[in-house]
Amino acid sequence: MVVGNRSAPLRIRMHEHDNVAIVANDGGLPAGTVFPDGLALVDTVPQGHKVALVDLPASAPVRRYNVVIGRTTRNLPAGSWVHERVLEMPEARSLDGLPVCTVAAPVMAPLPGYTFEGYRNADGSVGTRNILAITQTVQCVAGVVEFAVRRIKADLLPRYPNVDDVVALEHGYGCGVAIDAPDAVVPIRTLRNITLNPNFGNEVMVVSLGCEKLQPERLLPPGSLAVVDARRTIAADSRVAEAGNAGDRAGLDVVCLQDAGHVGFMSMIDTIVERARSHLERLDARRRETVPASALVVGVQCGGSDTFSGVTANPAVGFCADLLVRAGATVMFSEVTEVRDGIDQLTARAASPEIAEAMIREMAWYDTYLDRGRVDRSANTTPGNKQGGLSNIVEKAMGSIVKSGSAPIGGVLSPGERLRDRGIERGLVYAATPASDFICGTLQLAAGMNLHVFTTGRGTPYGLAEVPVIKVATRTELARRWHDLMDVNAGRIADGEATVEEVGWEMFRLMLEVASGRRKTWAEHWKLHNALVLFNPAPVT
Amino acid sequence: MVVGNRSAPLRIRMHEHDNVAIVANDGGLPAGTVFPDGLALVDTVPQGHKVALVDLPASAPVRRYNVVIGRTTRNLPAGSWVHERVLEMPEARSLDGLPVCTVAAPVMAPLPGYTFEGYRNADGSVGTRNILAITQTVQCVAGVVEFAVRRIKADLLPRYPNVDDVVALEHGYGCGVAIDAPDAVVPIRTLRNITLNPNFGNEVMVVSLGCEKLQPERLLPPGSLAVVDARRTIAADSRVAEAGNAGDRAGLDVVCLQDAGHVGFMSMIDTIVERARSHLERLDARRRETVPASALVVGVQCGGSDTFSGVTANPAVGFCADLLVRAGATVMFSEVTEVRDGIDQLTARAASPEIAEAMIREMAWYDTYLDRGRVDRSANTTPGNKQGGLSNIVEKAMGSIVKSGSAPIGGVLSPGERLRDRGIERGLVYAATPASDFICGTLQLAAGMNLHVFTTGRGTPYGLAEVPVIKVATRTELARRWHDLMDVNAGRIADGEATVEEVGWEMFRLMLEVASGRRKTWAEHWKLHNALVLFNPAPVT
Repeated sequence: MVVGNRSAPLRIRMHEHDNVAIVANDGGLPAGTVFPDGLALVDTVPQGHKVALVDLPASAPVRRYNVVIGRTTRNLPAGSWVHERVLEMPEARSLDGLPVCTVAAPVMAPLPGYTFEGYRNADGSVGTRNILAITQTVQCVAGVVEFAVRRIKADLLPRYPNVDDVVALEHGYGCGVAIDAPDAVVPIRTLRNITLNPNFGNEVMVVSLGCEKLQPERLLPPGSLAVVDARRTIAADSRVAEAGNAGDRAGLDVVCLQDAGHVGFMSMIDTIVERARSHLERLDARRRETVPASALVVGVQCGGSDTFSGVTANPAVGFCADLLVRAGATVMFSEVTEVRDGIDQLTARAASPEIAEAMIREMAWYDTYLDRGRVDRSANTTPGNKQGGLSNIVEKAMGSIVKSGSAPIGGVLSPGERLRDRGIERGLVYAATPASDFICGTLQLAAGMNLHVFTTGRGTPYGLAEVPVIKVATRTELARRWHDLMDVNAGRIADGEATVEEVGWEMFRLMLEVASGRRKTWAEHWKLHNALVLFNPAPVT
Repeated sequence: MVVGNRSAPLRIRMHEHDNVAIVANDGGLPAGTVFPDGLALVDTVPQGHKVALVDLPASAPVRRYNVVIGRTTRNLPAGSWVHERVLEMPEARSLDGLPVCTVAAPVMAPLPGYTFEGYRNADGSVGTRNILAITQTVQCVAGVVEFAVRRIKADLLPRYPNVDDVVALEHGYGCGVAIDAPDAVVPIRTLRNITLNPNFGNEVMVVSLGCEKLQPERLLPPGSLAVVDARRTIAADSRVAEAGNAGDRAGLDVVCLQDAGHVGFMSMIDTIVERARSHLERLDARRRETVPASALVVGVQCGGSDTFSGVTANPAVGFCADLLVRAGATVMFSEVTEVRDGIDQLTARAASPEIAEAMIREMAWYDTYLDRGRVDRSANTTPGNKQGGLSNIVEKAMGSIVKSGSAPIGGVLSPGERLRDRGIERGLVYAATPASDFICGTLQLAAGMNLHVFTTGRGTPYGLAEVPVIKVATRTELARRWHDLMDVNAGRIADGEATVEEVGWEMFRLMLEVASGRRKTWAEHWKLHNALVLFNPAPVT
């Protein structure tokens, strides 16, 4: 990668075979600018946008990341601005005849000895935070739960100093979702699996309305709670039992608002608050313990991307992903429409033909899903992406996939599935999700993420109440301007002040600090929380 | 309707041609119970469930509301419990050959002289509350807006005593929605039109991220804000202009988080708070004025239904709907899957063939939409409905449609459309929406509702931050138990203590009180707010 000081004209090429590079300088460069090697700009080129390194005749392939991101619509002499309007996007790659397991797994030496301070759970997972989460079967109860949570936070939480927060798992699911539609399995298992996220300490507390289709036992059938059930049987004579067996349905702690015992609104609030107490007591009794870094389950994502995403932040995340995999941790990458155009790279990196097959299945499902709504993967890119220099989804995808590093892909999850249910306990995993930031985050929570890394070029205040979100800026200008929202500045890579490897290591160490609770992310500091937004491909009646 | 005192065995038949009635007594009636007319119960029949009034041979049509709600699967002697497992549901009625405008419009004498105290808006609409609503182009900004709203409520709101509330219009829309998919028009116009709800005083304030696909000008194009624009031009030298033209885009007051001027998180908060001030000042200067009852725009809905819904609360709402129509007000009923089986009744009541055609178009769209997800309208009913005695969607639909009263149907809205954009300023309107309570409520808000009536049999704490919700219990037992959540007890109709007409008038008068701000609903008292949940039939990338 070409780097240099920030005053000289600076361009970045991702691969030696590329015939375009991007302009790195803040504010872009004016027409006439001459680079040290003699290349002169024919057009003014904004920061992050592409410049032709050689003469490109009409219909010439334009290569970036050593991939053809499109063909020129007209003759473009060297030094021209290569933007979306002069690029014709290629068709989506066919899902037939993809290379399978053709990339030899790179040699990745184990990285032992790294630890963090986490909360060990009965099911073997480890939390990075110690949160009481209140599950809701249906949006109908959200107002009541919100009222109760305010009360719990005001009256109870101060007495349990080891508990980090009380979070109402509000969502938009309701009886409207055609519960027996084949695709309804997606939002339902998402809700189920979020409840079981490691940051909630296996304390399952459900508020139900009573008449909803998604009854508590359907949301959380006994099998889904094996460990919780076991612990609960042991603790059968504890306060939970005392707090009222009315709510103890098949081992599940349920407060049902329509129960005949609830006379008046405050009786519902009192029940919820009272029932929360025993969960808080158990959570409060827990202490952080030293655990190996392998207990990390990191979801990586990008949002508000620009061309620097694929140059600075995402490569650094990719390097860090390799460190995590070497340390025995689990790393998930996602966002179907942002890998669709690089599916050949992914199937080539699959650890087994079955895994390649599963990836192809997810892509095919999504192609059909988008087609049903009469769009395709090109619906992904935003005006901000394009302003930031990303001409189309192919280019965006190449910059997005680098977040996955170089490890073999050892597992695939369908939307809303849980890593542990698929027996995945380490390594690089492809969790198929929409690219929407908060929908992807919601699904990664369901998968079992205990730490979230989010890169952004345009800037977003993204955060989740359920896990810490480490935000990484792709550009120094953004990192400076949003100094109290961005946790890491990967823009230093483009400035020539740090290498991809250095920023990757910095992230890795920061993750262990944040996971240990020794450092809070900016999103935690300001309590910036995006909503849980479910992926619901099923119809609503 | 048969009514009587509550200790004697009591059953309710909806129409003289019905061959079933429902048991009204609390707790139901045991087998062997003999009614005054000699009918003896063969089975124990729960409250709200149906009893055969005559011998029903196998395959006999079962009539309720003078409509065949199904055929018996076996021989059922008089006095038998007629429940979902002995009823075969009929096919959905074909959308071909429906009766059109065959019902003569009933004579409905005008009901003059009723007024309420409301907030007149520049666009001619009238608010029942005086709320500062902050529109969001994308879910990404929700955490920041929530932070800012807390600050505005703490620091500013106390200085503006005439302003009822500050509400962040949070929603799950984001760049994930394929914005150019044909169906994406639904969530987008919903967001646009909620912004223009009469309860927000035409004060439009938008928080944008910057890089989102749904740019402020796309969400709220100049034409959508004609009145607001006109007022803003007049007030060009007001504080809004002083507060910074950076945010004034084509007459739209936009705070863009990614604007270069925002250095640090608190600068975003400061801008939002500062920008809110001028809106609050204008809202605070408004006073309630006496306006005719015709300024009411009432959305009616039911949720958590039981058999009493169609016997007590919904008929009373229907009677009240007629009063409202006679007073010149607008009444919307909705919930496609709950009218689908009675579409012939609706087309027959259409005020014109075009309106019947529009209704059929909405049904057909929805049939296709559900079919795409491999379900049909029968996906609507819930376990609670069935426990409450509603055997299937046909029976549920009959009890739901009665909310519409007897007026001719004078208009039809597609999901997310706005009454005023369709030139509808009075009368009974069918607003096609999903039956999901909070999705229907969100769409009725977009249509321009300034008062909401919600009937419930099983009980739900439903509420909205944007408009008052009057909740009506179908049963006295629920009204007593949930005494501080239910605003009206229509159960008195089944108890023989009030007539449908009396409860209808009570609702009408209560509406004028609530609309005037003289009374708060229970949902307002407790600040119980369900989320805005968008209807998004488009795919998510």
